[in-house]
Amino acid sequence: MSLEDARLRDAADPLRAYRQRFHLPDGVIYLDGNSLGALPRATLARLEQVMRAEWGERLIRSWNDTGPNDDGAKDDGANDTGWIRYPQRVGAKIAALVGAAPDEVIACDTVSVNLFKLIGAALAMQPGRKVILSEPGNFPTDLYMIAGLEKQGLAQRRLAAPDAIEAALDGEVALLMLTHVHYKSGRMHDMVRLTQAAQDAGALVLWDLSHSGGALPVDLDGCNADFAVGCGYKYLNGGPGAPAYAFVAARHHAALSQPLTGWMGHAQPFAFSDDYRPAPGVDRLLAGTPGILGLAALEVGVDLIAEIGIDRLAQKSRQLSEFFRACVTDRAPDLELVSPRDPLARGSQLSFRHDEAYAICQALIARGIIGDFRDPDILRFGFAPAYVSFEDAFMAAENLAHIIATREWDAPRFKARSAVT
Amino acid sequence: MSLEDARLRDAADPLRAYRQRFHLPDGVIYLDGNSLGALPRATLARLEQVMRAEWGERLIRSWNDTGPNDDGAKDDGANDTGWIRYPQRVGAKIAALVGAAPDEVIACDTVSVNLFKLIGAALAMQPGRKVILSEPGNFPTDLYMIAGLEKQGLAQRRLAAPDAIEAALDGEVALLMLTHVHYKSGRMHDMVRLTQAAQDAGALVLWDLSHSGGALPVDLDGCNADFAVGCGYKYLNGGPGAPAYAFVAARHHAALSQPLTGWMGHAQPFAFSDDYRPAPGVDRLLAGTPGILGLAALEVGVDLIAEIGIDRLAQKSRQLSEFFRACVTDRAPDLELVSPRDPLARGSQLSFRHDEAYAICQALIARGIIGDFRDPDILRFGFAPAYVSFEDAFMAAENLAHIIATREWDAPRFKARSAVT
Repeated sequence: MSLEDARLRDAADPLRAYRQRFHLPDGVIYLDGNSLGALPRATLARLEQVMRAEWGERLIRSWNDTGPNDDGAKDDGANDTGWIRYPQRVGAKIAALVGAAPDEVIACDTVSVNLFKLIGAALAMQPGRKVILSEPGNFPTDLYMIAGLEKQGLAQRRLAAPDAIEAALDGEVALLMLTHVHYKSGRMHDMVRLTQAAQDAGALVLWDLSHSGGALPVDLDGCNADFAVGCGYKYLNGGPGAPAYAFVAARHHAALSQPLTGWMGHAQPFAFSDDYRPAPGVDRLLAGTPGILGLAALEVGVDLIAEIGIDRLAQKSRQLSEFFRACVTDRAPDLELVSPRDPLARGSQLSFRHDEAYAICQALIARGIIGDFRDPDILRFGFAPAYVSFEDAFMAAENLAHIIATREWDAPRFKARSAVT
Repeated sequence: MSLEDARLRDAADPLRAYRQRFHLPDGVIYLDGNSLGALPRATLARLEQVMRAEWGERLIRSWNDTGPNDDGAKDDGANDTGWIRYPQRVGAKIAALVGAAPDEVIACDTVSVNLFKLIGAALAMQPGRKVILSEPGNFPTDLYMIAGLEKQGLAQRRLAAPDAIEAALDGEVALLMLTHVHYKSGRMHDMVRLTQAAQDAGALVLWDLSHSGGALPVDLDGCNADFAVGCGYKYLNGGPGAPAYAFVAARHHAALSQPLTGWMGHAQPFAFSDDYRPAPGVDRLLAGTPGILGLAALEVGVDLIAEIGIDRLAQKSRQLSEFFRACVTDRAPDLELVSPRDPLARGSQLSFRHDEAYAICQALIARGIIGDFRDPDILRFGFAPAYVSFEDAFMAAENLAHIIATREWDAPRFKARSAVT
């Protein structure tokens, strides 16, 4: 595994040209797209258009406009390309990336807020059952969003280790809520098997796709999922704090009832009636006024991922992470791999354990290589296949091995922890 | 009241120069800043900076950066000017506009979602009381957000007309929730008197400042308010669907408990522990990852309003709406004013009733005058004092009177309602 190997792979990479569609800083190797995706170049022009033409020129009329325009003529409101249907429009595009029908996904709010809505919806559909089953060490916000409902007396949290989940599915479980790909280890759950097991026990299933949607094949309808949420700012490259998305299987649309009953989820928001009447389907997941700047940036990211295609992205993801693993195994054989060895059993990332993970991560950053540290001892490298090259992976492995071999990490400036990491 | 009068007033207007700080379309008179505020010119450059330098160049490091920079050198995370404290930073700036202490306000999510958090917080502080008291015809989302909690069995809605609110404050009322300035009529509630009355009855008080914050004096601490929410995209000019804000009086910070317990409201989000432990004060109102593009745009709008100053804005608002009222009274004496005649008893808007309000609004739009129609028969004109001129007000009144006198509105193209208005 040499630099020449890496370059040959890059030369043969069918996705190579897409790297130019992103703005990537000079002198940086970015292996943290699973935390914040890179900036698509097209986002700059699109946001300028939204600000200047849609907000600045068309002002309030853009809610109903027939699309970006500044000719002052179009304002018929008769279609759904104005801002008012932006959550549905972006949702439909995301749906195509996660195996859902266009009307099953909506883009809005945050993963956390969408979790609350869907946990609430599941509880409302499961009278007599209050248990939300998840696993210890799941991404914190997934576990925390149960806490608020627990305090209200509406839910009860139960955690079971991955190999004990099926045994924990009893008649009290209203909802099984898991993250498809684990944020820290990259381990991937079997969505088909676990969904089936939960439904056999009378539970509903909510999948958090934050670490898989946009990088790996996901088939929500194919595995008969009930609910899902996912993140807009990781593999979808929607920008910092981009709107998230929520999925509800079509078979639940009629009965869907969620607690955040805001005006944008009303059947007729502009009738301004005193009483809430839910909009059809996933539209009723909307609460407040959608953030248009965020949705516009998210749409650009989603369009780009859709153009590249999930299958090609997944294939390159596996090749990249396998190449990196081989390079690290060669050069730093003692570094403990935490992620599954089988690329089909993990997400688009590799994690390693080291007592000095924090300092190593800082030493890498000082060399322009941005990975991620996760408390207490995990080094995490994400391989966003849309823009990471094999040369990136090679150079990161080389530098990582060098930092470990020379104990370069063993310096006060790398070991001093900042308040927020 | 002539065009010359209007121009003399503009010439003498101390805020006149601020109009140039906004991008306003040619040929348009915009009297709908109470629905969507205009674009501050500085927003374009700031958003480009956020995208290009902070997201594009600094990537994940911007969460902890010491501010906008692209020199690759700063990454100490030791202060609070990175993205991670953006909700608090913008919240503190908004606090100064609504009579609150800097640590009492946070900018995040939407008005609807913040209402849910604070209604939930109020209920948690009021064991044995479940009634949320509001008024019929309040802005819909305020009423709707009670519905979700009602369905969960946690709240009970009670509505009382404005003159019956104090009589409806009994020992069952957990929270009085009102909008300071009514979205449709512009009528302003007496925050001091109603807050006192509610607290005398053992209730807490939540004020929705969506139609007053940023245009009129509000003194949350001065009136001893418990909670408040407000909108970022109206008088604060934060852009379509901008983040909203939430206020909690400092005396409630220690006991504050809200149901949307997400990771960003955790005391140590990056410790990734399984159990929720709330961050101090209003920080615990955060749920998911804050939307940075939206916050950045909001900050520009807030900075501009703060620079102009609420007192000057309020003074001009009253002069503008009085001038418009006089012009309309002269020219269309039969048009029924719905807003209070006393400018100190209303917000920065004037509303009129007319059976053909919808068609009149469309006819005005065709003439480049953008006001607002509100079901079923209200014509609403907002006077955002930061950028509306007396000439704008004069020309709007002239055209309004002309459209009514000539029945210009009586044409199929103005009467046909679009699906969304």
